[in-house]
Amino acid sequence: MEVELKELLADLQSLKLSLPDPSNRASIDQLEERVERLTKLANSASLRRSKVKDLSAEVVDSNPYSRLMALQRMGIVENYERIREFSVAIVGIGGVGSVAAEMLTRCGIGRLLLYDYDKVELANMNRLFFRPEQCGMTKTDAAVQTLSDINPDVVLESYTLNITTVQGFDTFMSSLRNKTFRPGKEGTGVDLVLSCVDNYEARMAVNQACNELNQTWMESGVSEDAVSGHIQLLVPGETACFACAPPLVVASGVDERTLKREGVCAASLPTTMGVVAGLLVQNALKLLLQFGQVSPYLGYNSLKDYFPSMEMKPNPQCSNAACLERQREYILAKPARDAAIKAKMEVEARTTVEMPLHADNEWNISVVDDCEPLRGDVSSSDALPEGLTRELPNADEFHKFPAAEPSATTFDDIEELRRQLDALNAD
Amino acid sequence: MEVELKELLADLQSLKLSLPDPSNRASIDQLEERVERLTKLANSASLRRSKVKDLSAEVVDSNPYSRLMALQRMGIVENYERIREFSVAIVGIGGVGSVAAEMLTRCGIGRLLLYDYDKVELANMNRLFFRPEQCGMTKTDAAVQTLSDINPDVVLESYTLNITTVQGFDTFMSSLRNKTFRPGKEGTGVDLVLSCVDNYEARMAVNQACNELNQTWMESGVSEDAVSGHIQLLVPGETACFACAPPLVVASGVDERTLKREGVCAASLPTTMGVVAGLLVQNALKLLLQFGQVSPYLGYNSLKDYFPSMEMKPNPQCSNAACLERQREYILAKPARDAAIKAKMEVEARTTVEMPLHADNEWNISVVDDCEPLRGDVSSSDALPEGLTRELPNADEFHKFPAAEPSATTFDDIEELRRQLDALNAD
Repeated sequence: MEVELKELLADLQSLKLSLPDPSNRASIDQLEERVERLTKLANSASLRRSKVKDLSAEVVDSNPYSRLMALQRMGIVENYERIREFSVAIVGIGGVGSVAAEMLTRCGIGRLLLYDYDKVELANMNRLFFRPEQCGMTKTDAAVQTLSDINPDVVLESYTLNITTVQGFDTFMSSLRNKTFRPGKEGTGVDLVLSCVDNYEARMAVNQACNELNQTWMESGVSEDAVSGHIQLLVPGETACFACAPPLVVASGVDERTLKREGVCAASLPTTMGVVAGLLVQNALKLLLQFGQVSPYLGYNSLKDYFPSMEMKPNPQCSNAACLERQREYILAKPARDAAIKAKMEVEARTTVEMPLHADNEWNISVVDDCEPLRGDVSSSDALPEGLTRELPNADEFHKFPAAEPSATTFDDIEELRRQLDALNAD
Repeated sequence: MEVELKELLADLQSLKLSLPDPSNRASIDQLEERVERLTKLANSASLRRSKVKDLSAEVVDSNPYSRLMALQRMGIVENYERIREFSVAIVGIGGVGSVAAEMLTRCGIGRLLLYDYDKVELANMNRLFFRPEQCGMTKTDAAVQTLSDINPDVVLESYTLNITTVQGFDTFMSSLRNKTFRPGKEGTGVDLVLSCVDNYEARMAVNQACNELNQTWMESGVSEDAVSGHIQLLVPGETACFACAPPLVVASGVDERTLKREGVCAASLPTTMGVVAGLLVQNALKLLLQFGQVSPYLGYNSLKDYFPSMEMKPNPQCSNAACLERQREYILAKPARDAAIKAKMEVEARTTVEMPLHADNEWNISVVDDCEPLRGDVSSSDALPEGLTRELPNADEFHKFPAAEPSATTFDDIEELRRQLDALNAD
């Protein structure tokens, strides 16, 4: 548009020079003014904010990071700016992956790697993110278009490929290994892989890559009837991999692709997918920025607003060779891990009995908090500013309620979990 | 843009007629071609899909409703098309309200009423929905622009006003009463009000309006530290109203507006707000389309992925006069409600012992299901198609787990709840 308008202006100017009559030249002047107005109009329609060098905590309407940097002031995150160092790979840019990508983009993530081979269709419009005018574009192209408009600070890499093909898998692996964004980084070139695919084969491909690369990843899924979903954390060697505990609903005896028959489609809802994407990225942020507790597994049953949670240890009989190798490494590293935990606890213990910064206090000054804790044993990080009182007890306190029980169930043994599930299905 | 280009073309044509030299005229022809190309370019950028008359369940890439109509085939929703009859009012088009509006728009809701008085700022870009190029527009205008592009079938009404002012409240009330969209409807002109505001005063205004109009509504909120939120169902007379059980964190002794001091702002995250919007609209869909269970109250503690739930009955000492009136009506209507429930149960009991449709069966034909139930007592709506087995037990079965307990706590008495919360805070 911009180029076309510039050319039009140049043509008008050369025409003006070739005209002998001054009154005609005046008409051309008017035309030129019109074209300039049009150029301004076209520019304002594609207005983009410029990149920022550092994340600012300044509270002004023009600062896109003020509400995120406030997480530091509120004591939730210790160092929010670290988000710019992180690379996250999102496999599958559909109903969950596209929203996850938008959330991370708006949070100012350093770099996003996007993988998909599909095109945007009108049939996708019942989920968030893609717009009708993007129909026909690849999902990766459409995502890059939208995300770079939203936040030009994020480095976007898009891979229009199918990771379940031999060539696609190779490119996937080498893109994860690439460390040019942060050369000093340990391990792979990415901090986290989010699997947002809709089939078993693609999940197994992500699982294979992450086991081989010793890469932490998170899996997500939404049911075919659109009303439930889940997220899961997978740390090679430490938690069950996707092959350790394959899903209990899989294509059995039939090719999964034939299940997607002509004239039949799965249902989907923007609500369920939005919730799953939100839970997924919230846990990704907790993992990367080190706050709160990362859920090992979290289900969402929307018909009952029920959120089952559980932990799964790796299966020593896992069919995946790379998983078994990671399990061996994890067991071998146990003494080093224990020593590190012990050392950390000793440092913390020493810090608490440390002498005050100023050992002499000749003026006898004592530091007191302006706002007193509101009630009994509320910890200092939970203290509210003056003028506010607490809406609900926090989760710790809630667990003391007579009828409330922690909903997480821990299974030490994957076989025990299987037996319990089988018993449930049998009765 | 379109108008400007048309005018430019007209100017060129009149200039051409005034030129004596044919070579100059040829240059103008070329210029006209350029402008026509520009017009095409401008039109393609604002391509929109056309309205549809009926929701189709046809599975083709070009059908924006195929994945929603599939909810019927999957047995989740009895009649999805009813969604086009419903009107939903959303008060507050911020981080939660804008996403709620987009979800309902993509679900094909009949009519949306949007209320906000604020403008889009760069500081809002850490939440979903608004785009940087919309900065400076009112949130209502920007929302209408985006939503009408996404789904032109939805009737959008926008109200750029503050419902806490006298005039704003009057307009709010009359817009809820207006029944021109569905003249035969009982009660008000809307089926549900979603409160997505960020302050106590605005919530009390929504509460007042809904109590006066006997209008069911849902309340939502996100904490100032961005890591927790909640949704709540409010049915005047039947459940606690917002004044029956005011939040336990409110401005006390200070004006709430002074809490939003210059240089200090609340934190916010697209994840928490996306989850709260998803849970809110999912419960709105369950209420409107009559599937699943609508949560009376659902909290979201993102640091622990903890989702407290509870029920609150109305407070007979509520300070809101309209609430007390609704409570009286609800008690008076009890015999009629009981009779209706009894009649419904009798009809259902009669249906189950009903004679078969064809009492004579001379060919001795019996109808059997193609796909047998997979295991024991799985109900027919839970049966999976051939080739699939179940991933997880459903919520009913999950409750039979040894360690799992239902997390909902019912409080018959608001005073009892208060006492328990006070006891928790005190220890």
